[in-house]
Amino acid sequence: MSDRRPASTVDDFFTLRTVVWEGGSVKMIDQTLLPGKFRYVRFSRPAEVAQAIRTMVVRGAPAIGVAAAMGVALAAQRSRATDMNGFLKELESSAAMLRSTRPTAVNLFWGIDRMMAKAKSAPSVREARGALSSEAKRMEDEDVDTNKKLGRIGAALLDDGDSVLTQCNAGALATVGYGTALGVVRTAVEQGKVVKVIVPETRPALQGSRLTAFELERDGIPCTLIPDTAIGYMISKGRVDKVVVGADRITRDGYLFNKIGTYQEAVLADRHGVPFHPAAPSSTFDLRHSHDEITIEERGVREVTEVRGRRIAPRGVSVANPAFDATPPDLISSIITEKGVIGRPLARNIKKVIS
Amino acid sequence: MSDRRPASTVDDFFTLRTVVWEGGSVKMIDQTLLPGKFRYVRFSRPAEVAQAIRTMVVRGAPAIGVAAAMGVALAAQRSRATDMNGFLKELESSAAMLRSTRPTAVNLFWGIDRMMAKAKSAPSVREARGALSSEAKRMEDEDVDTNKKLGRIGAALLDDGDSVLTQCNAGALATVGYGTALGVVRTAVEQGKVVKVIVPETRPALQGSRLTAFELERDGIPCTLIPDTAIGYMISKGRVDKVVVGADRITRDGYLFNKIGTYQEAVLADRHGVPFHPAAPSSTFDLRHSHDEITIEERGVREVTEVRGRRIAPRGVSVANPAFDATPPDLISSIITEKGVIGRPLARNIKKVIS
Repeated sequence: MSDRRPASTVDDFFTLRTVVWEGGSVKMIDQTLLPGKFRYVRFSRPAEVAQAIRTMVVRGAPAIGVAAAMGVALAAQRSRATDMNGFLKELESSAAMLRSTRPTAVNLFWGIDRMMAKAKSAPSVREARGALSSEAKRMEDEDVDTNKKLGRIGAALLDDGDSVLTQCNAGALATVGYGTALGVVRTAVEQGKVVKVIVPETRPALQGSRLTAFELERDGIPCTLIPDTAIGYMISKGRVDKVVVGADRITRDGYLFNKIGTYQEAVLADRHGVPFHPAAPSSTFDLRHSHDEITIEERGVREVTEVRGRRIAPRGVSVANPAFDATPPDLISSIITEKGVIGRPLARNIKKVIS
Repeated sequence: MSDRRPASTVDDFFTLRTVVWEGGSVKMIDQTLLPGKFRYVRFSRPAEVAQAIRTMVVRGAPAIGVAAAMGVALAAQRSRATDMNGFLKELESSAAMLRSTRPTAVNLFWGIDRMMAKAKSAPSVREARGALSSEAKRMEDEDVDTNKKLGRIGAALLDDGDSVLTQCNAGALATVGYGTALGVVRTAVEQGKVVKVIVPETRPALQGSRLTAFELERDGIPCTLIPDTAIGYMISKGRVDKVVVGADRITRDGYLFNKIGTYQEAVLADRHGVPFHPAAPSSTFDLRHSHDEITIEERGVREVTEVRGRRIAPRGVSVANPAFDATPPDLISSIITEKGVIGRPLARNIKKVIS
């Protein structure tokens, strides 16, 4: 209904980085403060990074993958070990702590495993330290490059004038930069297409209103914020041309694990013949597990009973707060990756494209 | 996860009344303050009642129907007119103001029309005043009786051990007392069945967390509060046996107009073979209109961008905030009314049962 641009000193999200490796420390945007305050925080201990992941200072599968990898690099920097055995033991302990923060997004494990493999292949502690620091920076840069590739591939699926429904935040703030689902939108906009984004607020953590609307407003990309209850209404009224969402894990049998609410969007899109496309880098694919082996994180009661410290439900009420859901492959039109678009049958084509 | 009972001085909602006619004034629970504060407010002017309906001090189709009728009765009490012509003119002016408050719930128009017909049939102003006052009290009492009848009829559809998903608040707080959808649950509980209610918080106005969870906690009926995004997850995990919701209007062609989010619940219930039952008194049926003639109320931006005065979205963001949606008859298993259960084909059977 209104379209005023917010006053802000933030750079645009076409180029901004959410997570940055600075050698001895990690710098990241504190996403719990958005959209009210835009502030970077700096961490030099692995435990601080683990806590930041747990409390969603940093969130989004690709971003937490890179942040966790940087947590391992910090452990390497801080280690006083002189022999590889002791060094790897210390690293493994930090890695275990980082792995325990959140169970569903596979990028977390991917990022940590990649660093541990790097450490193990180094000939000395000194060389391992250097290698992990370089690897952290490389992963940061790669993430942005991957998203831009993915964006180019996905933008071909968007037409001029499209209204794109998303879910949660799969933008620059969910990655190191540029975004996955919103990266697709950004590329389409850079190509001169007019694309509008329909943004569900995404309770309970409100990543839609707090982060996605913030990113898009900042970049001048038109968006309309809606309550999560209005998704069916918007789709049934013909106000959505395509659905593009992110992913926390895509299993080898083609199931999409993503922010709670994604499944119901997919069911509604299917009923109304609207194409449904997850957008994810290959690091989000889990070729080792099928959907029934995945743990869905259950988060705390207060995310649901309070908003910004204000109580909105009676004291003592029981709450269910699953953070993710699973969308079966029959509801997915195709998956956008940096290696190409994966079409049906998903299980077979995932194996072909991701390896 | 927790099950502590809240301390409270509120009577239980098996007997409590939300809207009460007290002769020269109307007493109603201020629902904007719940669950934090439980407080009755008293109004003696029609304009105050109109404002209370507009700002959702009182809400829920049956409750606003009775409240609006009481608004007309207040106009009759306050009128200084001595001839019927002038009296009816004054009444019609108050009725027009009350009609303009909210467009979607048909009970509002039903309640006002019933009072206007009563006024017109009176032989004198003095007798009209008395008749409208009695009619207001009668409608208050009838509403509770109707809900108890409806509850008995609907409870036969619930089995011992059922988990019932609802939407918004179709409880004592949406009616004069006892509730429609929650009246069905209350009767089943009174019959000794163990029934648990799954309560979506129902953004943007949070009637699920603020009102439904409050009512049920107060009455010791077990409930689990969930974000609106988790409905598909709960249904797909087999944690919902039946859906029972209220209604703001049911058109002659069998379309259910109810709180935004109802349509997507119905689509998800249908996909997973879960029965979907609206529960509504006959005053909620609109035999004169078909679904494409109904106006869906669009409410203000701040319901979405703020929660309890705290901003949760960037300034100036565009918002869509439809307050209701339409569920087509093919997604409705049957409709629970005080006159019996209306089965398929709905359009034909609505005409038979409601007249």
